[in-house]
Amino acid sequence: MDTKRHTSPLALDSNQPKTNEASSEPVALDRALVKKLLEYSGNPRIEIRLWDGEKISISNQDPIATMRVNSRIAYSRLMIQRELAFGDGYSDGQIEVEGDLIKFLCEVYRAKRQAQGSRSLLRLYEFLTKKKPRKNTLAGSKSNIHHHYDLGNEFYSLWLDREAMQYTCAYYPIESMTLEQAQIAKMEHVCRKLMLEPGQTVVEAGCGWGGLARYMAKTYGVKVKSYNISHEQIVYATERARLDGIDDRVEYIEDDYRNIKGSYDVFVSVGMLEHVGRRNYRELGAVVDRCLAKNGRALVHSIGRNTPELMSAWIEKRIFPGAYPPTIREMMDIVEPYNFSVLDIENLRLHYAKTLRHWLERFDSHEQTISKMFDDRFVRAWRLYLSGSIASFLVGALQLFQVTFARESDNSIAMTRENLYPYVKN
Amino acid sequence: MDTKRHTSPLALDSNQPKTNEASSEPVALDRALVKKLLEYSGNPRIEIRLWDGEKISISNQDPIATMRVNSRIAYSRLMIQRELAFGDGYSDGQIEVEGDLIKFLCEVYRAKRQAQGSRSLLRLYEFLTKKKPRKNTLAGSKSNIHHHYDLGNEFYSLWLDREAMQYTCAYYPIESMTLEQAQIAKMEHVCRKLMLEPGQTVVEAGCGWGGLARYMAKTYGVKVKSYNISHEQIVYATERARLDGIDDRVEYIEDDYRNIKGSYDVFVSVGMLEHVGRRNYRELGAVVDRCLAKNGRALVHSIGRNTPELMSAWIEKRIFPGAYPPTIREMMDIVEPYNFSVLDIENLRLHYAKTLRHWLERFDSHEQTISKMFDDRFVRAWRLYLSGSIASFLVGALQLFQVTFARESDNSIAMTRENLYPYVKN
Repeated sequence: MDTKRHTSPLALDSNQPKTNEASSEPVALDRALVKKLLEYSGNPRIEIRLWDGEKISISNQDPIATMRVNSRIAYSRLMIQRELAFGDGYSDGQIEVEGDLIKFLCEVYRAKRQAQGSRSLLRLYEFLTKKKPRKNTLAGSKSNIHHHYDLGNEFYSLWLDREAMQYTCAYYPIESMTLEQAQIAKMEHVCRKLMLEPGQTVVEAGCGWGGLARYMAKTYGVKVKSYNISHEQIVYATERARLDGIDDRVEYIEDDYRNIKGSYDVFVSVGMLEHVGRRNYRELGAVVDRCLAKNGRALVHSIGRNTPELMSAWIEKRIFPGAYPPTIREMMDIVEPYNFSVLDIENLRLHYAKTLRHWLERFDSHEQTISKMFDDRFVRAWRLYLSGSIASFLVGALQLFQVTFARESDNSIAMTRENLYPYVKN
Repeated sequence: MDTKRHTSPLALDSNQPKTNEASSEPVALDRALVKKLLEYSGNPRIEIRLWDGEKISISNQDPIATMRVNSRIAYSRLMIQRELAFGDGYSDGQIEVEGDLIKFLCEVYRAKRQAQGSRSLLRLYEFLTKKKPRKNTLAGSKSNIHHHYDLGNEFYSLWLDREAMQYTCAYYPIESMTLEQAQIAKMEHVCRKLMLEPGQTVVEAGCGWGGLARYMAKTYGVKVKSYNISHEQIVYATERARLDGIDDRVEYIEDDYRNIKGSYDVFVSVGMLEHVGRRNYRELGAVVDRCLAKNGRALVHSIGRNTPELMSAWIEKRIFPGAYPPTIREMMDIVEPYNFSVLDIENLRLHYAKTLRHWLERFDSHEQTISKMFDDRFVRAWRLYLSGSIASFLVGALQLFQVTFARESDNSIAMTRENLYPYVKN
């Protein structure tokens, strides 16, 4: 892989001022505005240190961490663009955090959410004025997905679990599990929810590096067709299936989920809905309705929200273009129009926080290698993205929903969910 | 209890024509209209026998059962009022079913739903033109609830489980369980979802005869306040708690859930939401938000739907005034505005079919006793209501949702649901 080849995904806008301009000392107005920002943000227990070294805090309690704003430029952008400016400033080193980054982010998110909770008009304002996610048309999706998932299989293999390369929430039924064990437990949990039986056919919408499809074929003896529009992932997954000698049972198809054809016993989609876009849920439901057999099972696994809220502007712009995590109400657009019956919804929020901690640990331990692949801005941005995601799941800003459903007339559904708990000690 | 005292809840409208009038023989037009009705109903595998003995069917397959329409009056009403006329006709013996009533109803419901599934405009039309449920204002709720739940504790005690008198869906983790065992398993399942601990405080909205509150207090050592607007149930529940010596830990309050006061570790509501009315879900959520402690748990258990659909006109008019079973999307009005985090949704549809079968068996075995309490019309109506409910759950027209939720910032939630499965054989 070429070194430094991936500066582009995180490159800042070209019309942005250089950070070494206009570095005049902070004046009284600047300090007043910083205080206003802290107040608007729900008075988090942090302090802000301006580029002249002065520390500003409005909380009575000891600060959890210090946010350093290293230049007037970074400060000016922060005042105007907030989240986006913080993310970009952190990425290019103009904003730094002294202390535990995750604790700092948890405190900031929590304070902001509590402040908004009591000011629902403010919340509505933020929702309406935030930039909407980019559209996920057939072409748009391809470009959005390429931005993130085609960063290089080598990069992801450094910090995802080794065997299945799952870039989605793992499942920790036993607290001490390794990332590898927890990703296998997740795949097993999904398979059990779907009640797979040998010889059944499965269609998967969005398959990442194909780990779940391989697990299903090997462990449950099913035949899987997996759709994905990331070229690099499809190439990787196809090669892995060939090496594992299961290419007669697993087929990876480089195409959009909207083009799924055929009839299957099982529909599964783990970690794709975030990229589908709110307006396309009905269409996704129509795809499931079209391809699911009479007594078929379906499962959709997605990051979600308790209340409608757009993705952080920085995440949407720099990390996941077109992404939107839905509420349960919004997810119902997939099932309701087709009379599907929701059998089970499970929230795995804290499992995603744990998964992300494992990813971040590995990311940090491979920092030197990653620094050779990408520039420093990318490394800092990626660390902020992983840390911010941990914080979001910890404070409840993000949820992880697994929704299992079937046709309304299907009476072969399980009476209880006890088959999901092989780990239970009686 | 006075015999025959309860004819009123099911008395027909006073302006209805007497059934012995206008019994002219069926003519060609009548037969054509019956065929049209069968066609409109999705061509169910049934035959209709008119009052002159003629049998009409449009299905090629052998009929599952025969519906006898014994008079021109019953026929005329059926053509105009459909569900309502069928229910009333069945209740007063003018319409009879030869063959298995539940199988007959399953066939009719399934055919109708399949026919509607392909004609969504028809579905919309039915939804818009059906009579909306009566309003559940404070006074309206009182009257609606009195209609059904104050029929007499003696009547319900004949066919509900003996110990806890649960008039809600039981839970059968083991298939062979008796009704008594399954109702205890249901209460245990609810308590486990709520992670009750000794000394905690619970508030219950809608408590029936108080069985769950007593179970919680006895088994988990919690203090419970239960709200209910059915006078007869409150009297019964209070007396039972006194006899059991737990009246220091369980308090039954004859008041509306909207008047709940205080702060509690747990909010629970089993089988009340059906009577709350769609417009009041937000207010119910506000009650939970007001009374739930920081790390509190809440559970709402309710009959539901896959897609919005009004209650059968007959059920709403004769059995459950004001009742409406919500979809999951509609239930989100309870949680979303208050930023609650849904932890778990479980669908127990087939458990309700089983529960109702147990109730119907006992109801039938006590027919003689019940006939002394009420008139024949009541007995037939009640049998139709129980059988129709079984059929509705079997064909997927009704669902049973248990929704567990907590505040978004609560990280003391369970990582897995394995504590719900003590019956698991490893």
